[in-house]
Formats: sequence, structure tokens, C-alpha cells
Amino acid sequence: MRAAFYISDGTAITSEVFGHALLSLFPTEFEHDTISFVETKEKALEAKAIINKAAKRTGEPPLVFHTFVNNDIREIIDSCEGVIYNFLEHFVAPLEKELKIEAKPKAHRTHSIHENSYDYRIDAVNYSLANDDGSNVTNYAHADVILVGVSRSGKTPTSLYLALQYGIKAANYPFIDDDMDELSLPDFLKPHKKKLFGLTIDATRLMDIRDGRMSNSKYASARQCRMEVREVEKLYKKEKIPFLNTTKLSVEEITAKILSKTGLQRYKY
Amino acid sequence: MRAAFYISDGTAITSEVFGHALLSLFPTEFEHDTISFVETKEKALEAKAIINKAAKRTGEPPLVFHTFVNNDIREIIDSCEGVIYNFLEHFVAPLEKELKIEAKPKAHRTHSIHENSYDYRIDAVNYSLANDDGSNVTNYAHADVILVGVSRSGKTPTSLYLALQYGIKAANYPFIDDDMDELSLPDFLKPHKKKLFGLTIDATRLMDIRDGRMSNSKYASARQCRMEVREVEKLYKKEKIPFLNTTKLSVEEITAKILSKTGLQRYKY
Repeated sequence: MRAAFYISDGTAITSEVFGHALLSLFPTEFEHDTISFVETKEKALEAKAIINKAAKRTGEPPLVFHTFVNNDIREIIDSCEGVIYNFLEHFVAPLEKELKIEAKPKAHRTHSIHENSYDYRIDAVNYSLANDDGSNVTNYAHADVILVGVSRSGKTPTSLYLALQYGIKAANYPFIDDDMDELSLPDFLKPHKKKLFGLTIDATRLMDIRDGRMSNSKYASARQCRMEVREVEKLYKKEKIPFLNTTKLSVEEITAKILSKTGLQRYKY
Repeated sequence: MRAAFYISDGTAITSEVFGHALLSLFPTEFEHDTISFVETKEKALEAKAIINKAAKRTGEPPLVFHTFVNNDIREIIDSCEGVIYNFLEHFVAPLEKELKIEAKPKAHRTHSIHENSYDYRIDAVNYSLANDDGSNVTNYAHADVILVGVSRSGKTPTSLYLALQYGIKAANYPFIDDDMDELSLPDFLKPHKKKLFGLTIDATRLMDIRDGRMSNSKYASARQCRMEVREVEKLYKKEKIPFLNTTKLSVEEITAKILSKTGLQRYKY
């Protein structure tokens, strides 16, 4: 199996994201390895040795995705027995020309603490945790968005992703069995109706997920799942709450669609 | 201010990460806008109109970062009044040559649900939430890693990031005031010593963070913060628990360093 390395002087998240986007176009498997915080010549030599070892072991030159802007370190990595794909270098010169500004590579720390975005995100995570799963219904005035839906439709992971990645204070409230007869909007949600965003899910998928947690329960029964999904969708339409079916979507896709549909402000880009 | 657009037929996360990595090299501000799920010609025409409007408003051609592989849609976006930076196109041909395989662009859905990574991640998020902040000390046998440290040293956001991004089951346990006299490892952590990873933080930064939450409390006092940090660091050294000072690190950096130091297996790349 061909080895793929993601290397950087920081977290290497940029190298991972771009390398993975490229490799996902190819219908074959790779061996993935990330080498982060390669900040010195010594570490660059260690990384080079690891790559060369993989070349020997696999019998093929490893694919090396990196974003180095420092010449000393970059030269060491570029001299390895892998094939080098450097994402930044192709685009820096054209951008300098377009912007008529020189790039300042020393500032290249995409995933480090900068601006005020860090505190926003920690605050947002704390908010989302404190207001997860209807655990606190008195605090919605501070929410940027309130996700609603049946149990296991994706509210919690999505709330946390919104908070961690974008600094958005996302509360979530589950509609549960007891609410379902003549489902209507609880009084404490009414003043915040503009912040509501509904999640729904196909009843068969909901059954599968719930069955994995509580096998053969009423909670996981076909009848119950169909009823809950039908009731919440009816409510969304009646109350004109924007909503989304999460059945075939990843957390990233649900989040991107919520951001796109609501125009919510990201605190971090 | 120059406008920058991140556009894709999916979440546009790849475009955002790479565009942002590039723009962060330039010491100037940009107006950021993401247009996700541009899956049809109609949506491409809408996106083009938004870009052209920004060109008129700002008086400069917007920077457009995209990853389109579909020719129809791509042609529409490429015909806008922005400057186009397409990350994938520069690298696909050289990679095809190297791998001797043709790229299959239709599979380009980097941040969608694929393989089994989705369930791993949701399970990991549920695990991390259920085992956050010492709320459950009986379940550590299932943890991939257990973060320990004083209150407000970054354990919770890091646990959630490990779970959401990498599908790693990360529990966390806080050392609190009552533990601090002759701090030793609680009995329930001892069988899992190999999974422990310690976080520490500069006492002055810890004071700031705690003061923001409980002003003028003993919890936020200089003496208390210094004592707690001193005690946990002593414990880490005595018990040979690997540890990290989080003072100047983002959640992404803390996570990358933990992955690098522990060699923890990522369930998703």
C-alpha cells in the first residue's frame, strides 16, 4: 500500500485536509501518517528518515503533502525519497501579484490561537454543553441557534461542531415521547422562534440507530419512530421552522447546510 | 476590503481550509464568504451573481477558492469577475501520473459520510460527553485516552475535538481542590495509567480564565492557581504521565500534540 505523509511545522491540519481531498479522488487505499510540529532541522531530519523508511518498506516513493515556507526545513523534507506536493508554493506568487502585497510566511500558523476567536470558541463549547439536550431551557436568550428534533437525529454532535469549529453558541432541545400528542412548540421556545432550526431523519434510519442503543424497546419501534418523525415534521411546517433531513449527511454537511440556510455569522473562519 | 469566496459542491470545508491557509500569509483583512452545496448550474449562476455583485461593491475582483471537478459548474464559476484559485486541478494530473490510476472526481465528497468513520465519531462524541469532567469514573476501560488536569486547563474542548474530528474516545478527569493535599493518583485511574495524558497551564493564565468565571474567588486566586499547577506537575513527573502546557496552544494544537506524543490511532483521517 502506498504511504502518504502529511507534514507541517504546526498541526498539519491544512496538509491533512488538502492531501485527503486529493487522495479521495483515487479509488485506492493509502497508509496515512501525520508528522506535526516539524519546527527544527533536527525534526525535519527525523521526518525525512521516517519517509525514507516507508519508501524502503513499501517499495514505492511515499506521497508527501506539506506546507513549509521555511527554506531550511523545506529543503530537508524536499530531499527525501518521497514525491513532494507543496500546496502553498503554487499559489503564493500569483496571490502576491494579485494583492500587490508580499506574503509574510512567519505568520503562517493557521490553526494556532489568533485574534479573539479562541475565547469565542471555548465560550461557545461551554454554552453548548450547558444547554445540550434540553438540560437548561432558561438560557436560550444567549443562543445563536437552537436545534430541535427527535432523540438521535444528530442535534448534539452538530451543536458541538458549530461551537468548536465556528464559535457559534448552539443549544439543542429534544422533542420526547411525552410531547408528541398534539405536538406544539413549548412556551419557553416561543420567544426564540427565529433561532430554531429543525432536524429530521428517515424513520427507518432512526429505528436502526435507536435499536443499537436500546434493542427491542418502544423507543426503537417502527411505529414510535414513524410517529415521532411525522409529528415533528408537521410542527416544523406549521410553525415555519426551517428544517433538514440528516439521514445521509455527515456532521460537517449538516453544519454547512445550517450555516447556509440561516446565514448565521461564523465567529471564526 | 477584498472579498474572498470559498465555494464547492459539498461543505466547502476544503476550500475554506486551503484558502484561509493562503490568506493568513498576507498581513491584510479580507471579507469572507462561503457558498456551499453548489450542485447545479442554477446554483452556480447564483454564486456567480453573488461574486459579481461583490466585485462591483468592493471595486476589486474577489478571490475565489474552489475545488470543482464537474466541468459544467466549474465553467460557470470560472467565468465570474473574480480571480480563480482551484486547488485540486494543479495536483490531480501529477498524482494520476504518479499513481498510474485515473482520478474519479464523482467520488469527491471529502466531508460526507463514508466508510465507517461516521458511527465511530458519533459513538466517540457520546462517550466523551458521558465521561466528561469526572462525571463517570467507572467507564475508563473503554477510553482511548483519559485527559487529566486542573479545572480550566483545556480538557473538555480537547476531548470533544478528539472525538468529533478523529473518532477517539477521550474521557477527562479534573483534579480538584480537595484532591490537592499530597496529590496522588485516584485508585480508579491507576488501572488505566497508560491511557493518561496530563494538561497543565501557566498559573497566571489560569487565574485570568478562572477570574472571568468567578471573580475574586479562592478558586481564581493566585495562590490557589499556583498551588494546583505545582501539585499536578509534580504528580505527572512522579507518575511518569506525559503532559503538555496548553497556555499558548489552540484546541487543534493541543490535539495534534497529544496525537503525536501518544501515537493514538485516528479512526478517521
